[in-house]
Amino acid sequence: MKACHDLLINGQWQVGLGEKFISKEPASQQVIWEGYSASGDQVNQAVQAARMAFEHWRKLDISERLKYLHRFEQVIKQHKDVLIEALCHDTGRPYWEAQLEIQAVAGKAELAFEAYLQRTGERVMATSGGHIQLRHKPHGALAVLTSFAFPASIATGYIIPALLAGNTIIFKGSERTPKVSDLLAQLWQSTGIPGGVINVLQGDANVGHHLTHHPDINGVLFTGTTTTGISINETLATTPDKLVCLNMSANNPLIIGEVQNTQAALYHILHSAFISSGQRCSNARRLYLPDSTFGDHLLEQLIEQSHLLMIGHYHEQPAPFMGPVINLASAKSILKQQQLLLSKGAHVLLSAHQADEKSAFMSPGLLDITSIKETFDQEIFGPILQVCRYSSFDEAIDLANKSKYILTSGLISDNQAQFDEFDCTIQSGVVNWNQPITGVSGAAPYGGVGLSSNHRPGGWYSADYCAYPTTTMYQHGVSFPSSPIPGINLKITP
Amino acid sequence: MKACHDLLINGQWQVGLGEKFISKEPASQQVIWEGYSASGDQVNQAVQAARMAFEHWRKLDISERLKYLHRFEQVIKQHKDVLIEALCHDTGRPYWEAQLEIQAVAGKAELAFEAYLQRTGERVMATSGGHIQLRHKPHGALAVLTSFAFPASIATGYIIPALLAGNTIIFKGSERTPKVSDLLAQLWQSTGIPGGVINVLQGDANVGHHLTHHPDINGVLFTGTTTTGISINETLATTPDKLVCLNMSANNPLIIGEVQNTQAALYHILHSAFISSGQRCSNARRLYLPDSTFGDHLLEQLIEQSHLLMIGHYHEQPAPFMGPVINLASAKSILKQQQLLLSKGAHVLLSAHQADEKSAFMSPGLLDITSIKETFDQEIFGPILQVCRYSSFDEAIDLANKSKYILTSGLISDNQAQFDEFDCTIQSGVVNWNQPITGVSGAAPYGGVGLSSNHRPGGWYSADYCAYPTTTMYQHGVSFPSSPIPGINLKITP
Repeated sequence: MKACHDLLINGQWQVGLGEKFISKEPASQQVIWEGYSASGDQVNQAVQAARMAFEHWRKLDISERLKYLHRFEQVIKQHKDVLIEALCHDTGRPYWEAQLEIQAVAGKAELAFEAYLQRTGERVMATSGGHIQLRHKPHGALAVLTSFAFPASIATGYIIPALLAGNTIIFKGSERTPKVSDLLAQLWQSTGIPGGVINVLQGDANVGHHLTHHPDINGVLFTGTTTTGISINETLATTPDKLVCLNMSANNPLIIGEVQNTQAALYHILHSAFISSGQRCSNARRLYLPDSTFGDHLLEQLIEQSHLLMIGHYHEQPAPFMGPVINLASAKSILKQQQLLLSKGAHVLLSAHQADEKSAFMSPGLLDITSIKETFDQEIFGPILQVCRYSSFDEAIDLANKSKYILTSGLISDNQAQFDEFDCTIQSGVVNWNQPITGVSGAAPYGGVGLSSNHRPGGWYSADYCAYPTTTMYQHGVSFPSSPIPGINLKITP
Repeated sequence: MKACHDLLINGQWQVGLGEKFISKEPASQQVIWEGYSASGDQVNQAVQAARMAFEHWRKLDISERLKYLHRFEQVIKQHKDVLIEALCHDTGRPYWEAQLEIQAVAGKAELAFEAYLQRTGERVMATSGGHIQLRHKPHGALAVLTSFAFPASIATGYIIPALLAGNTIIFKGSERTPKVSDLLAQLWQSTGIPGGVINVLQGDANVGHHLTHHPDINGVLFTGTTTTGISINETLATTPDKLVCLNMSANNPLIIGEVQNTQAALYHILHSAFISSGQRCSNARRLYLPDSTFGDHLLEQLIEQSHLLMIGHYHEQPAPFMGPVINLASAKSILKQQQLLLSKGAHVLLSAHQADEKSAFMSPGLLDITSIKETFDQEIFGPILQVCRYSSFDEAIDLANKSKYILTSGLISDNQAQFDEFDCTIQSGVVNWNQPITGVSGAAPYGGVGLSSNHRPGGWYSADYCAYPTTTMYQHGVSFPSSPIPGINLKITP
């Protein structure tokens, strides 16, 4: 699709002038992408290109902008096989999962357009004081920084509503998924979108740092860790005019209540905890199980079934449930955190392990943390589920709420009263009932609570942060108001 | 209405244990209120009270919370005379202006309820993946910090939507308008609202500092200067979970285009620049006039009419247009800023002055800044209008946009094409046409651009920041999904 690699700046491909880096398929460790990071100067060029392009792009009618987004949808569909493969290559995730992600990407333009009209858009109201016109205007050049979790759909979930509202973009995906970013850049370019409207950079945190510190950006849309997010927030604290949208770490709880169909409950637990090898911000990290015979029985089966989950290469048939984690360093770090939990008093129910040090495959782990009194409130971004036994339902909710950051939460229970209590009390953006907690609908808002976000929910509400409202009171022609205020001594001739 | 002064904490009146302070009527310099600031310990008590009260308040049905807001509306109407008088006492503003502010206060509950339902509220959608329920939940205990500009309506504009959504409040108004804060506290108390739901503190920036630094608040809703707002933003940068809503300084432009009815144009200019003695965040600070015979002529009349504006005590008849500025220190500071502008090369068209050093009355000033090349982008919070002559309409818009903070802007012109260009290009929250730029409708969003806000528009959109969305995917009873994902080896019995 293109001859020369790396960066898309102002509608032109550039070789990165920063450091060389590579991406390896996490299972086989084969190099599947290599290229060069953007230099500081190239970051500047991308920001300037986005600022320049903004002047034209924002003035287009929204139907014109929508055309490019629909073309993007078309090229996504046309090139879905190569995109799915890139996703599998970068992340090692099963083919079916990559397929679902690309399906979601292809559906975003229409949802974003509906949300734009409903949440923002334009309207005119007649009031006693004249006409009031409500419009929404874009912010300018927005930096989009995303993680490897959903390298195509999270990025697109920022980019599409932002472009639709009239903003321009400087996008840097994770340095762990450069092949996906690369392909997205090519597909955007193939839509014929004007140069500079979307610029794509490659590189690691240094490129991100340069970008978020750039004086000419108008905002940052970020998905990543709370540590990095807070650091961005501190950087931009003296410039509140710059839009900051942060989606960060989370430590999500899942509570098991009264359940008849234990097999279905098991399904929801396994799905919630281990899909994507626990590398979704929405994965369940903590499981609250009743301290009862029922709980003992369920736990026994959970251990057994976790052990039986199919792990494999993305292309294997029958299809595996899980692939590897993102890379060898990540596997090492997850095991270290497992060790840390054990040192704090957790008991092994099923030990997560890496069978082969030369491959990033990991088996799921289950740790009983019931007896740990000290708070351990870290997001372990991998296939480790912490199990905690509770004696009363109130206690379960109290324990579930003991996190500084929750994005998703769930209750598995046949009992409506339990759900009503949970729904009222849990502090979480997603509050699911008898569903896995990792699913998300683009037709609803989506955002975390506590240090998991900064109150800029995405999904359906992305429209809200992509544009600011302008209010106009007007009348045609200059004339006196019908009831002028006192003390202005003009000869009033209405 | 009450025996003992100062603070309302947890439904009880307390004498402030901080410093004594007084409020003087700005015109006569008579002491019209005296009391004591909150101590640090009393700030803590108020925060704890708000946190405690939150647990009950948030669980009430919204119709229950609305009842208290309607009662507030009733008591405002019953006690409007005493409230209007307090406003006149604290600020010296004309009676008719205080009356309009109290009218606006009394209408806020119904508007907030409509906005709540339209922007937030609850709904259930049926999708292919099950039911999705959308709800909105309150943040917790919110600090409300406001300025003297509209001591009753800005505070109430924060408090009512926040309470409606289920938050509780610690309110500190300006130390320059303690009598209004005091009365608002009494009126809230008389609604029978549960203790701790709304706590009212008195005091200066020290009390505000203590409050915004308190670890247990869940957010800050602030109106004041950009300097203070940025300082709050920096304080809370490491806790992005705390909601920060900033409405700050502004340097608003008004452009005069092609006009037939110069008298009506004059009316809009005088109103926009000098209402409230230039002490609204929405006042026009910069006037762009064509450099033409028409412009010369209009300017001549503007000077003459500014000179003739009626200034007087709030109770005078016929009613004055303007009262004094807020206090003697403010008058001094405004004159100093006039001097600064002159030292930078501005020419006096009409010199603002304070006839009597023992009273805060000020006459309006007009300064021609056309020849100043250096940027002077400070908000002068008083009756001084900077006039700049332009040669082309494009130049006028360019000059108007040369501010780091704009809240309101306006064009006075008979020419629709001029408005279309202005509307498209001006960077402002309010973009009025042939209307004064100081009016605002509660049925529309309201917020500044640049360093005038942090993208949390108020008015109709206050509902957005007062609650966060929660999304629930659910089904009654625990069962398997219709299409389970691969690799989970459970015996599936749907």
